[in-house]
Amino acid sequence: MKIVVVSSVIEKEHKDMITAVSDRFNAEVCFTASENDLPEGFEEPDVIYGFGLGIAKRDKNLKWLCVPSAGVDYLMKPGVFANDECLISNSSGSYGVTIAEHIIAVTLMMMRRITSYYAESLNGNWEHNHYQQDSIKDSHITVLGTGDIGNEFARRARAFGPARITGVCRSGICDDPSYDAVYKTDRLDEILPETDLLVMSLPATPETDDILNRARIALLPRGAYVVNVGRGNAVDEDALADALDSGLLAGAALDVCKTEPLPAASRLWKTKNLLITPHVAGNLTLKHTLDRNVEMFCEDLENFLVGRPLKYEVNREKGY
Amino acid sequence: MKIVVVSSVIEKEHKDMITAVSDRFNAEVCFTASENDLPEGFEEPDVIYGFGLGIAKRDKNLKWLCVPSAGVDYLMKPGVFANDECLISNSSGSYGVTIAEHIIAVTLMMMRRITSYYAESLNGNWEHNHYQQDSIKDSHITVLGTGDIGNEFARRARAFGPARITGVCRSGICDDPSYDAVYKTDRLDEILPETDLLVMSLPATPETDDILNRARIALLPRGAYVVNVGRGNAVDEDALADALDSGLLAGAALDVCKTEPLPAASRLWKTKNLLITPHVAGNLTLKHTLDRNVEMFCEDLENFLVGRPLKYEVNREKGY
Repeated sequence: MKIVVVSSVIEKEHKDMITAVSDRFNAEVCFTASENDLPEGFEEPDVIYGFGLGIAKRDKNLKWLCVPSAGVDYLMKPGVFANDECLISNSSGSYGVTIAEHIIAVTLMMMRRITSYYAESLNGNWEHNHYQQDSIKDSHITVLGTGDIGNEFARRARAFGPARITGVCRSGICDDPSYDAVYKTDRLDEILPETDLLVMSLPATPETDDILNRARIALLPRGAYVVNVGRGNAVDEDALADALDSGLLAGAALDVCKTEPLPAASRLWKTKNLLITPHVAGNLTLKHTLDRNVEMFCEDLENFLVGRPLKYEVNREKGY
Repeated sequence: MKIVVVSSVIEKEHKDMITAVSDRFNAEVCFTASENDLPEGFEEPDVIYGFGLGIAKRDKNLKWLCVPSAGVDYLMKPGVFANDECLISNSSGSYGVTIAEHIIAVTLMMMRRITSYYAESLNGNWEHNHYQQDSIKDSHITVLGTGDIGNEFARRARAFGPARITGVCRSGICDDPSYDAVYKTDRLDEILPETDLLVMSLPATPETDDILNRARIALLPRGAYVVNVGRGNAVDEDALADALDSGLLAGAALDVCKTEPLPAASRLWKTKNLLITPHVAGNLTLKHTLDRNVEMFCEDLENFLVGRPLKYEVNREKGY
C-alpha cells in the first residue's frame, strides 16, 4: 500500500501524524512538495492526499484521492481519474473556523463602512463623513448552505446580539442550534425579501449555478448585503454589479468569482461597494485549518487501511 | 425648569421620548441642531443634552450637562463651565455594541491580512500571495479597560472558539463572565508578554497618558496586535510606529490619535501594518447607539426631575 502526500505547506508535526498511521498498518508513505517530483517506486500510488491531479489522471491503481479543499467541482469532470472507481474525499469541515472569521470580517467592514474609511486612509485622508452604519445585531440573516462554514458563521453571529438567523439548504434539515429556522432551498424566494444579509456558502453543482440570479437579487430589500464564500458559479455577477451600482444593495463581498483570477478588465473591480478578496477566506495558512485538514485525512486513512468506509467521502452524485 | 437638546442627528421618535419625560414634570424642552440657534427664553437652561459647550461656558444657571459621548476629558479643563457645581453625565454604556463590532472587524482585518488583499483589490489586483493568517480562536487576548466596550468585545470574542481573555482595569474587579481573569492595571507588565491581541478602551486621564509606552510595547511578543478605540493619549505613537515598521508587531488599528484629525504629515499614515480609522468606531450613525444614548438621557432626566442622583454621573475626580 503506497501513499503519496502532495503538499508544500504541511509541517513536520503533520508528517509525523500521517507517518504514525501508515506505520501502524505497514503502509509506505512519501511526502513531496510537487507531484512532478515523486520518489522512485511511488509513481502509481494507492492513495493520494493533496492536489495530485496529474497522478490521478494516469494512475489506474489509484483507489482514493483526498483533497485538502472543501469544494470538489473540479474533480467531477470526465477524464480526471484514470480509475473511474477511485474514491474521493474532501476536507469540508476544516474550513468552518477560518471562513466564518472571514465572513464576519467582511460583513462588518461593509456594514460599518470601514471599506470607505480604510480606502481613504491609504491616501492619507482622515475621512470626515459619518456614513450611516448597520449592525449584525437586530439584523435578519439568511445563510444559504448550512454546512460547516455556514454553521460556524451563524454561531459567531449569534454573539453579536439578537438577530434572526435563517438557514437554507437542499434538505431543509440542519440541527445546528444557531438557526432560528431552517428551510428548503425551494423556499428561498419567500425568505429573500426579509433578508438584510445573505451569506452564501454552497458547493459548485449544476443546481447552484446562478442560484443568486437577477430575479432573486431583485427580491432582496434595498440596503441588503451579500457575501459569497462558496463558489463563483452561484452568483450572476453582472446582475449583482447592476444592483450595487444602482444602490439597491448596500454592499457585497465576493471571495470567489466565476473566473479566477478575476480578469483585469472585469467590471467587478470598479463596481460600487463591492469588496473583492482573491479566494483567500479558506487559506491553509491558518494553523488551525491545516491541523484539522491533516487530522481528517489521518482519520480516514485509518478507516481506509482497516477497510471501513471513508467518513469524509464525497457523494459523486450530489457533487459534494 | 428649562432643557435644551442640542443635536443634529436625533429623530422624531427620540424627541418624543424626551418630551414625554419633560411633560410629566412640567419642564420645558427645546430642540436645536446648533447651540448658536437657541429659541427665545432658552438662553440659560437648567439642563443641556448634547454638545452645548458654548452655553455651558456662560450659563451660571446650568445644573446638569449630559453629553452624548463616552469620553469626557474635554470637560475636565478649567473654564468649561460657568457654574462649577454643574453635574456632568456621559453616555458610556451606549457605545459597547457598536465599538465591539468595530474591534472585531479591525482585529480580523489585520489577523487575516484583509487589509493587504483589499488594498490590492482597490488597484484591480488579484493578490496571489497567501499571507500567514492568525485567528481569534486560541489567541491570548488582553482587554485593557473593562467597561461596557471592553466587555461587549470580550463577549463576542468568546464566540470565536477557545481563547484566553484577560481583563485589566484600575480596580482589578469586573464581574463580566467573558473574562478568564481580571487583574489590576499595576500587573499589566506581567500580562503583556503573553498577549497576542491587546485591546485598549480607556478614558483619557492623567493615569492613562502613554500607558502603552515604549517599554510596554517592547514587552509584547513578536507578532502581537494592538487595537485602540479609547483615546489617543494612551499610546506612545512613535514607539508604536517603530514596533510596526520593525516588524515586532504584526499590526495595529488606531481609531483614535493624539491629534485628531491626524495631520497629513504624520508618519502614522505611512507606518507598516497600521490600520487607521478616523474616530468612527463609536459613530452615532448606528441606530442602536443613538436609541440607547437617548434612553439613557431620559432615564437620568427623570432622576434629575424628581431629585434622585444621576445614574450616569461622571466622577470628576476619576475623570470618567
